Amino acid sequence: MIAEIIAAGSEMLTPHRQDTNSLYLTEALNDLGVQVAFKTIVGDNLAHLTSAATIALARADIVLFSGGLGPTEDDLTREAAALALNITLRRDPAILEALAKRFAARQIPMPPNNAKQADVLTGATVLDNKNGSAPCQYLDTTLFSSDGPSLRKIVILLPGPPKELKPLFAEQVVPLLSASLPPRFLAKRQLRMALIPESTVDARTSPIYKQYPDVETTILAGSGEIQLHFLSAKPSLAEAQARVDELTGRIEAEMDDAIFSSHGESLEDIVLLNLGIRDLTLAAAESCTGGLLSERLTAIPGSSRYFLGGAIVYSDALKTSFAGVPADLVATWGPVSEPVARALAEGIRTRTGASLGISITGIAGPTPGTGPDAQKPIGLVYLGLASATSTEVKELHIAGDRERIRFWATQHALELIRRSLL
Amino acid sequence: MIAEIIAAGSEMLTPHRQDTNSLYLTEALNDLGVQVAFKTIVGDNLAHLTSAATIALARADIVLFSGGLGPTEDDLTREAAALALNITLRRDPAILEALAKRFAARQIPMPPNNAKQADVLTGATVLDNKNGSAPCQYLDTTLFSSDGPSLRKIVILLPGPPKELKPLFAEQVVPLLSASLPPRFLAKRQLRMALIPESTVDARTSPIYKQYPDVETTILAGSGEIQLHFLSAKPSLAEAQARVDELTGRIEAEMDDAIFSSHGESLEDIVLLNLGIRDLTLAAAESCTGGLLSERLTAIPGSSRYFLGGAIVYSDALKTSFAGVPADLVATWGPVSEPVARALAEGIRTRTGASLGISITGIAGPTPGTGPDAQKPIGLVYLGLASATSTEVKELHIAGDRERIRFWATQHALELIRRSLL
Repeated sequence: MIAEIIAAGSEMLTPHRQDTNSLYLTEALNDLGVQVAFKTIVGDNLAHLTSAATIALARADIVLFSGGLGPTEDDLTREAAALALNITLRRDPAILEALAKRFAARQIPMPPNNAKQADVLTGATVLDNKNGSAPCQYLDTTLFSSDGPSLRKIVILLPGPPKELKPLFAEQVVPLLSASLPPRFLAKRQLRMALIPESTVDARTSPIYKQYPDVETTILAGSGEIQLHFLSAKPSLAEAQARVDELTGRIEAEMDDAIFSSHGESLEDIVLLNLGIRDLTLAAAESCTGGLLSERLTAIPGSSRYFLGGAIVYSDALKTSFAGVPADLVATWGPVSEPVARALAEGIRTRTGASLGISITGIAGPTPGTGPDAQKPIGLVYLGLASATSTEVKELHIAGDRERIRFWATQHALELIRRSLL
Repeated sequence: MIAEIIAAGSEMLTPHRQDTNSLYLTEALNDLGVQVAFKTIVGDNLAHLTSAATIALARADIVLFSGGLGPTEDDLTREAAALALNITLRRDPAILEALAKRFAARQIPMPPNNAKQADVLTGATVLDNKNGSAPCQYLDTTLFSSDGPSLRKIVILLPGPPKELKPLFAEQVVPLLSASLPPRFLAKRQLRMALIPESTVDARTSPIYKQYPDVETTILAGSGEIQLHFLSAKPSLAEAQARVDELTGRIEAEMDDAIFSSHGESLEDIVLLNLGIRDLTLAAAESCTGGLLSERLTAIPGSSRYFLGGAIVYSDALKTSFAGVPADLVATWGPVSEPVARALAEGIRTRTGASLGISITGIAGPTPGTGPDAQKPIGLVYLGLASATSTEVKELHIAGDRERIRFWATQHALELIRRSLL
């Protein structure tokens, strides 16, 4: 079975807004074994929407609409679907009553327009929307044609707001769809690696995953991170799980400690988890990243147990006053240097009483450094990691613009901490 | 004239990747007076792509394809467009030669497959792609039909990578398109406001902007920010500019100092600009936001002149050691309190020697505070802003999850600084 998703709404034909529901719907449909073959984005225009619906019914088995179920004149999905299916709409008394109750609860009169939210495709099942006023409609029907075979079509009308669409789809549509589709048991795993080129990961893992044509392997390259997704669908869950686990195990053996996460955790999660396991605390002294490393760590709930905080030593003076870096060290070597990175990491560790101190100092650009740093290239970054017994310093050359240099510097810092905890 | 954008690529029918070129193309087309009526996303499948192309040619005047111009078997846009237009492809010798040169420069033999990148729609203009191997094709043609009028259609094939598509479109396609369209002069302005509900902005501004039906007004609500975009198209630029400026001036008078930016600058930009105008420096002591405020400020190139840095005082001990907050103050009132916010702002200002000190302390959740903070609600945030002469403290109650509370806290902090500099 193939599906088409129609996103209705003129705002998605402006430069400012994009359909995002289809990503969620695609994942849920793929899990059911349904491929999405087309996505159409169309404005609040009855002729356009009806034409899009007609085309979709001709080329897909399952047609999902998102949006256009509100009470305004611009909400035309119900009408367009009915026209394309050549069926009528009936006004549902139960929905009307629920609408009236919603308005009564808010003590405002219901505008007459809102009654159209009770219009239902004849034959459709109404699925209650707990988070909004427009219910979902689910129609499993047969289209008869004079010159061809009769065709089964499933038409689903979903509200546009993601907070309404997602629970409705997951809780009510998925059970209906899976009852209509061949039984299917899915197993999934995910491995993540930091700072390795996609081509390297593919060169080393493809000889393995190609031996598992029944497991769908997807390589996703993000910023400083590669994800490997594995998915297997089998007639039994045990069988699917066994195949995915076997493949994952072989990839883990090949990539070894390059893999930081085997169940979808982020690099920040893993660093905090490993600090926790060893009962260690961390503090940071950030120069060119200006707080980004600390921000990434503190975005994780519960991080305060292992991350104490630190200093943003953007000016040279603060490198001395907050992390005790000798002023003459900065003057001699420049703030972006191996000795300053070392002193920053050791200093922030001592000043905060943390088990580990991490430092980042670099030239993020677009303008070059000054004084002793004037001749150093944009993208030069030094990391320092100090413990009670030793300090490690790493020199990096990061390509790209200011945003990329800053993000990759924090990614390298997290990876340096993670590897030190192995 | 209406346009349809067809994004070709199976990866955009997965849960992981999305078409983004269409946002850029839509803005550029709107500026030319062309509305986008449909967007279609289709996989690397000749039948699907040809059908999408045929449908688009029937319902739009301008059909833009992005993607599918590479050298692989999956790159089928040229073939599909030719089939839908019922024309042939010719192999262009100049493109073939350029391809051969690219490979020779890299000292690798050209795989035979790559020659298909030289296939051009008969009659199309070839637009050179400086950033990749696939040129753009621009075809201005007339479709004849036996049962209706002949119709002018413009078909544009664009490479998928945004770094290739954008310069090609801006530099070469826009001049061709604007030569084919009625002359049009555009004026644009943008006003931004922080921390005001969209409904308030609309209630106060709509009585004004509704008097300017010839100016297109768009209200965009982002996280803690409202943008008002104004666009006017007139037969002369002076006329368009005058209308937009008149409307913008009246909205500025109505919203007064709620407007932080009148030419598209971000709140961070404006804070740094105002610090610069008054020759002031800033330092930050962040608790619950964990570096997010500093990160937002230091993301702006040149920020080091006015932002010195500061401390991430995530643990109570660091509030004392880095910002001199008396330990008994934290013990008595709790870290999330008016006196601690005040002492943090004053302390970070003194310790860093900055003109202004900003502090943020709050409960970002999802778990509640401890000790004296145990009974305080999640979302409670105190800001402190200290100058040489006085300290202002603000109590906030921010709704939402950890991410929203942290972001809005930094948004309030930036707005507090901005207003203090007015």
